Amino acid sequence: MDTITVPAPADFHVHLRQGDFAQLIVKHVRKGGFKLAYVMPNLKPPIITTDQALFYKAQLEAIDPSVQYLMTLYLSPELTPEEIWKAKAAGIVGVKSYPRGVTTNSDGGIESYEAYYPVFAAMQDAGLVLNLHGEVPSNAATNTCVLNAEHAFLPHLRALHAAFPRLRIVLEHATSRAAVECVRSLGPTVACTITAHHLALTADDWAGQSWHFCKPVAKFPDDRAALQEVIREGHPRFFLGSDSAPHPPHAKATATPDQPCAAGVYTSPILLPLVAHLLESFGALDRLEGFVSTYGRAFYGVPAAEAERGVVLKRASGKLVEERFVSGEQSVVPFWAGKELGWEIVED
Amino acid sequence: MDTITVPAPADFHVHLRQGDFAQLIVKHVRKGGFKLAYVMPNLKPPIITTDQALFYKAQLEAIDPSVQYLMTLYLSPELTPEEIWKAKAAGIVGVKSYPRGVTTNSDGGIESYEAYYPVFAAMQDAGLVLNLHGEVPSNAATNTCVLNAEHAFLPHLRALHAAFPRLRIVLEHATSRAAVECVRSLGPTVACTITAHHLALTADDWAGQSWHFCKPVAKFPDDRAALQEVIREGHPRFFLGSDSAPHPPHAKATATPDQPCAAGVYTSPILLPLVAHLLESFGALDRLEGFVSTYGRAFYGVPAAEAERGVVLKRASGKLVEERFVSGEQSVVPFWAGKELGWEIVED
Repeated sequence: MDTITVPAPADFHVHLRQGDFAQLIVKHVRKGGFKLAYVMPNLKPPIITTDQALFYKAQLEAIDPSVQYLMTLYLSPELTPEEIWKAKAAGIVGVKSYPRGVTTNSDGGIESYEAYYPVFAAMQDAGLVLNLHGEVPSNAATNTCVLNAEHAFLPHLRALHAAFPRLRIVLEHATSRAAVECVRSLGPTVACTITAHHLALTADDWAGQSWHFCKPVAKFPDDRAALQEVIREGHPRFFLGSDSAPHPPHAKATATPDQPCAAGVYTSPILLPLVAHLLESFGALDRLEGFVSTYGRAFYGVPAAEAERGVVLKRASGKLVEERFVSGEQSVVPFWAGKELGWEIVED
Repeated sequence: MDTITVPAPADFHVHLRQGDFAQLIVKHVRKGGFKLAYVMPNLKPPIITTDQALFYKAQLEAIDPSVQYLMTLYLSPELTPEEIWKAKAAGIVGVKSYPRGVTTNSDGGIESYEAYYPVFAAMQDAGLVLNLHGEVPSNAATNTCVLNAEHAFLPHLRALHAAFPRLRIVLEHATSRAAVECVRSLGPTVACTITAHHLALTADDWAGQSWHFCKPVAKFPDDRAALQEVIREGHPRFFLGSDSAPHPPHAKATATPDQPCAAGVYTSPILLPLVAHLLESFGALDRLEGFVSTYGRAFYGVPAAEAERGVVLKRASGKLVEERFVSGEQSVVPFWAGKELGWEIVED
């Protein structure tokens, strides 16, 4: 098999940034083979109202109108049931919850969920999706740190699903066998995104290597194996959300004694070839269409347009990932810079 | 209590480097309050013969003759029982084992121990100490990575102790509750060093923060608590080995996509005040003398000279750790640069 046609790839978790940086980043959605981007709201300031989301969507469309942007709000105390219905009417798809302080621009993240139950009830009725960054803050008293913050979050996921069984919930960027098993055990309204980079990395890869540092951190080899297995199995509630998260190169490369490097791995511009390469590496290439298109689109209820042509991948040989992408004064280094990928997108 | 006199502090694990860098580093042993340095042999090339160790010792003494340097050899296939006896006669104290590839300059590290049993038998008879970097190489097939590499090493420690019960063995820079419990369960010939930085750090601190990346990596809060508890208890087989490991600032601050940052935390120039500060933070200041002097000296059989004056610490207020130490073209950034320490050394 030397070519694959992938109908309507959809990235159900991506960071597109703002301002000059967005001018460089947004176009990489298409470059990576995708025409649907589920857009994260953790800007500065965060997107907390429908109006902000629509304004941001217009900015993204001005940069590349050929991509379908599905917009989200940032869960915060300002969010009301009324705003949920307004968001629904405006075509906003989901609400993203960040635990306080665990990742980029999450200082306004939530500390407990009960206060949001009226909002979740409205979301359930309106049909909005709850997107969960599934980590709890570190706490030495409970032996919680970045290594088990996801595991410690899973009871919250179970409780939310029990309280709102019709609410569609996505556990984002799962990294552990425990998370996979938890989502698998829950009902059809609970799904899970998996990033490309967590199919490749373990803790060894970010130990001392800031370019591979992201939240949640990659974990044990067996956790990576669990992510690979559930994709190989073709489970329809596990699908791609890249969590592609660009930062300026200096912020990724360098830490000072006072300031760690930025968290995030940038995969957008190579995403579809990368996912094909990775799935093939663990015997799941036949699940590519389901993982990057069908499953997520079915869960979200966003079928591909009938007229949409698929994206064609062909086998590549000696094709190296770009070392850097530059636009004006902006630049960004992709995951696996300089490494070889076994697939490339056939140019239109 | 506003002053403490610590008799004859001894650092039973330190990296003093070579060449121009050593000119800067070696003097920091005294600066940090120590007059005894147990010197690691992982130079380029590694110290594998008695003659090399004596040559290195002379270089160190030329830089600062006021420190007692206890020398070690690097365990490698070249090492013979004959060389062990030669080393013993020359005053060399120990042999350091590095698993292959797990830390700085360990490419020549060991892969299995059975081949070294004749050497260990000679060491047991001669009274040399075996110093173990207690990690196994990562292996996805056995779910081994940096997070559990120490845990997976412990069966090797048990086996070595069972095979050579009279051989003094030190598990170096333990980082986990499992390691503490393992050493505790073994006989009086097995001891354990603990670094200062592992009393302060957890995995959260090196995630994205290259300055805190070292091998073994700091682990869960409960693992840190186990290190603190065994010191608070005053267990005489657990004592200070700083594993102070300097690198040029650019090698610590920066990773490229191809090259991680260097592994190591540099504590030598602030070591005694830092250890006092940390022990006080978890209620173990009364164990300072045992932890930094008595216990290790007893295990190694190197009592303090009767004439040696103690080092006097006094409470400090507003005393900040230096941002950087410079000598000619060499520079190095200490752990906790810019942070406040509660103790300082009284100048002579």
